Amino acid sequence: MTLYMIGLGLYDMADITLRGLEAIRNCDVIYLEHYTAVLHTGKEELERFFKKPIILANREMVEVGGGNIVDQARDKDVAFLVVGDPFGATTHADLFLRARKKGVHIEVIHNASIMSAIGVVGLELYKYGKTTSIVFPDENWLPDAPYHAIKRNQEAGMHTLCLLDIKVAEPSKEDLLKGIDKPQPPRFMTVQQGLDVLKQLEEKHGLGVIGDDTIIVGVARLGGVNDIPLVRSGTIKQLMDVDFGEPMHSIIIPSPELHHVEEEMVEQWCAGEECVEEKEAKRKK
Amino acid sequence: MTLYMIGLGLYDMADITLRGLEAIRNCDVIYLEHYTAVLHTGKEELERFFKKPIILANREMVEVGGGNIVDQARDKDVAFLVVGDPFGATTHADLFLRARKKGVHIEVIHNASIMSAIGVVGLELYKYGKTTSIVFPDENWLPDAPYHAIKRNQEAGMHTLCLLDIKVAEPSKEDLLKGIDKPQPPRFMTVQQGLDVLKQLEEKHGLGVIGDDTIIVGVARLGGVNDIPLVRSGTIKQLMDVDFGEPMHSIIIPSPELHHVEEEMVEQWCAGEECVEEKEAKRKK
Repeated sequence: MTLYMIGLGLYDMADITLRGLEAIRNCDVIYLEHYTAVLHTGKEELERFFKKPIILANREMVEVGGGNIVDQARDKDVAFLVVGDPFGATTHADLFLRARKKGVHIEVIHNASIMSAIGVVGLELYKYGKTTSIVFPDENWLPDAPYHAIKRNQEAGMHTLCLLDIKVAEPSKEDLLKGIDKPQPPRFMTVQQGLDVLKQLEEKHGLGVIGDDTIIVGVARLGGVNDIPLVRSGTIKQLMDVDFGEPMHSIIIPSPELHHVEEEMVEQWCAGEECVEEKEAKRKK
Repeated sequence: MTLYMIGLGLYDMADITLRGLEAIRNCDVIYLEHYTAVLHTGKEELERFFKKPIILANREMVEVGGGNIVDQARDKDVAFLVVGDPFGATTHADLFLRARKKGVHIEVIHNASIMSAIGVVGLELYKYGKTTSIVFPDENWLPDAPYHAIKRNQEAGMHTLCLLDIKVAEPSKEDLLKGIDKPQPPRFMTVQQGLDVLKQLEEKHGLGVIGDDTIIVGVARLGGVNDIPLVRSGTIKQLMDVDFGEPMHSIIIPSPELHHVEEEMVEQWCAGEECVEEKEAKRKK
């Protein structure tokens, strides 16, 4: 029997591939990975569409209790559904290896991931450096990794994709300390919240990696059609005033050196009239 | 009317998304971009499946004559199909901008790209640096770019994806010089040919970026299921002896610093028994 690791694509159930859909409909058990990204189609609607019940899989079920998923795949066809691609922004290599070790046959069915769909913004995909994640800081913890990743990419002439934190069905720290495992409502970091973290990091380190006049690109709901996705470029100052709406959001810090087609692409998403001028002004500095 | 830029995914017609399929079936004119990648489903089979005639678009039609595609989209729904994602390994930003300038409405429908599907190998996708392309050299021309890209990525602890050249329906240089525009049979660079270019570059520059004992990963036909895709890891010396079969192939040069899950993933694709030992030996040097 087989463990199918199937990408659902980025926006809703219409993003499934024919290969993925066929596999799901032939599987006996369906898990939906539910903690690193969400689809704009709810569980019930997906169940009607796939004509199968779906088990929502949280981090514990996949990363710790992944054994259950793997064990079931020894005598049943099991689908493990992942928003985006199963080896995209989050690599489910760990589950893959555990399945391999137990001799379970695995099929991976790919789909669009934020890691490649981000190309639609018009910054050449091959020029992206290491991707970084900005997580919700708390009063005692401000992770530095994004700051250093952006700095290193800038120095090497590479763009940086910043993935923004998502908390689905996680208990609060206060509850955890009391031994209560009660899931909180989902939280998705916005472009503004992400920029705020970057500004705090700049204040802390002071290496001039970003400033109010740094040109960045914010994106929301990539993969949707018509007016659903939103891409806006501008200075950090300008983008702090843009409401990017519903999740999920991401931020791109473009390389300081852009090809003219990249420049044109970035400029068309301009959030304010002053965008191009400010950029010119910055260039002359 | 609308210009639909639609990703077909990586392997064959079953990789289309439901959203993409619906758009194609509603379009009046269908172009298939035919010079940066190919699907394992032929034109006739795709035409039967989509129930529409397909126009094969070469580089000239898209990059120079793209005006025709754009002009048609002013009063018809036009689909522009791209293997992988329309903004993946090749960014069709140029066509996008020309359509925008003429006021044509554009919808992008994403799909799996080699740029994200490569994650299946088990090297963390977020740790890839700039992607590079290895092109067929000729007697007078050995492009240096891949060598420097790998070097820079290695220094920054990043993996390098090397895309391998493809020549579809291009005339030979000899014919071109004689003014004859006769398409040659398609050529796809193999893993071995790609490694051979890298070895030549190492010989030329001598900076110790790669050597016979460098561990690399070769992949072929990503996106296919069952026994179709092939992933093999090993030293360059070992992989020179592996027949990767049908196109398309790619090469990954892993970062010198791997996480233990990455190591385990790479080792499972090992082409020879000595793989792990050689790596250990190299590490001790």
